[in-house]
Amino acid sequence: MGTVVAPVDVDLVQYWILPFPYSLQRTRAGAMDINVVNALTYEDFVKLFGNVVEKCPLISAAIWSHRPFKDLADIEAHITEFILSLPDSGKEGILRCHPDLAGRDLQSGTLTRESQEEQSQAGMTTLDSAEVLQMYRLNSEYKERFGFPFVICARLNKKADIVGQLSERLKNDRAAERERAIEEVKKICRLRLRSIVLSDIQTEL
Amino acid sequence: MGTVVAPVDVDLVQYWILPFPYSLQRTRAGAMDINVVNALTYEDFVKLFGNVVEKCPLISAAIWSHRPFKDLADIEAHITEFILSLPDSGKEGILRCHPDLAGRDLQSGTLTRESQEEQSQAGMTTLDSAEVLQMYRLNSEYKERFGFPFVICARLNKKADIVGQLSERLKNDRAAERERAIEEVKKICRLRLRSIVLSDIQTEL
Repeated sequence: MGTVVAPVDVDLVQYWILPFPYSLQRTRAGAMDINVVNALTYEDFVKLFGNVVEKCPLISAAIWSHRPFKDLADIEAHITEFILSLPDSGKEGILRCHPDLAGRDLQSGTLTRESQEEQSQAGMTTLDSAEVLQMYRLNSEYKERFGFPFVICARLNKKADIVGQLSERLKNDRAAERERAIEEVKKICRLRLRSIVLSDIQTEL
Repeated sequence: MGTVVAPVDVDLVQYWILPFPYSLQRTRAGAMDINVVNALTYEDFVKLFGNVVEKCPLISAAIWSHRPFKDLADIEAHITEFILSLPDSGKEGILRCHPDLAGRDLQSGTLTRESQEEQSQAGMTTLDSAEVLQMYRLNSEYKERFGFPFVICARLNKKADIVGQLSERLKNDRAAERERAIEEVKKICRLRLRSIVLSDIQTEL
């Protein structure tokens, strides 16, 4: 990568300033320009964006075909379009690539970096033993019922909300819950994309 | 996993005895039964079959929705159906999840276990420096032309065949070559599936 990183386009930043309930770290210097993204080889593109949908590099690898992207919103739109084009089994497949919240991967340190940060922010790393057991019981009940794990955008929810929503969403039927969970995947993806675009591309590659 | 592993069904073994040009290691004791596969949680299923299509656990995670499987051929058929249902970008995405033959991942030791074994069997680990350079040049030309890496079932081809096919397939147009490469993905998948089914499930999990 010999490319000089340009400051991010102002309109592009505006798009990413969304009404999310946490403060946005904006670092104009070093943030990435869409032209830099469009100049990436597929290898570097997948290296950078491969985990915006958890453990599904296939998705970012697929949408590389649609370059050049107009802006980050365009990348997000292509990812959404790809996900929604999948059969129900494919959407469930995406969900099954996600770890349990406060589950085995967290305990054993095998979460992806992104999941580790997200679960940590949501307070999943500081549960007491009763809370860990409660999450285990609810996760198990959920997986038994739906055949995929409970997925929620952890960065947008605190511990109590997560437990509440897990209990609430257990009442859905499978089709409704699949769609609900995919909406969460899209939120997670949007925040991961934003996190990448506001970081220095050079340090990521 | 408390399940007792039963010997593999004879019809199932017959299916997997295909006219491939290498000897089949058959170990009846310990090989897996389709009932054992059907009893796996999605987590264990993805752990076991998650890399039958290189770095695309989404695919095995998706087809878990179609349990119970009749036999291993049924698993393979579902994988093929899923791949063929993808838009062209998705098929190209699958290809982009593959490493170069005799490329950077091989040199740096970052291949998946399966790819490492396959490239080794095809003689890619014992190339002399002139051959490494030739592969680098041909891979680069191919990627520049098609926007995805050259994929071939390395277990079914020797070094000279690989170089010959790489040169030959460079003459295809993009659509024809995408389809050709996906045929190779299916062959790799079939052999990886067979390798798993003839191994001891207990040692894999």
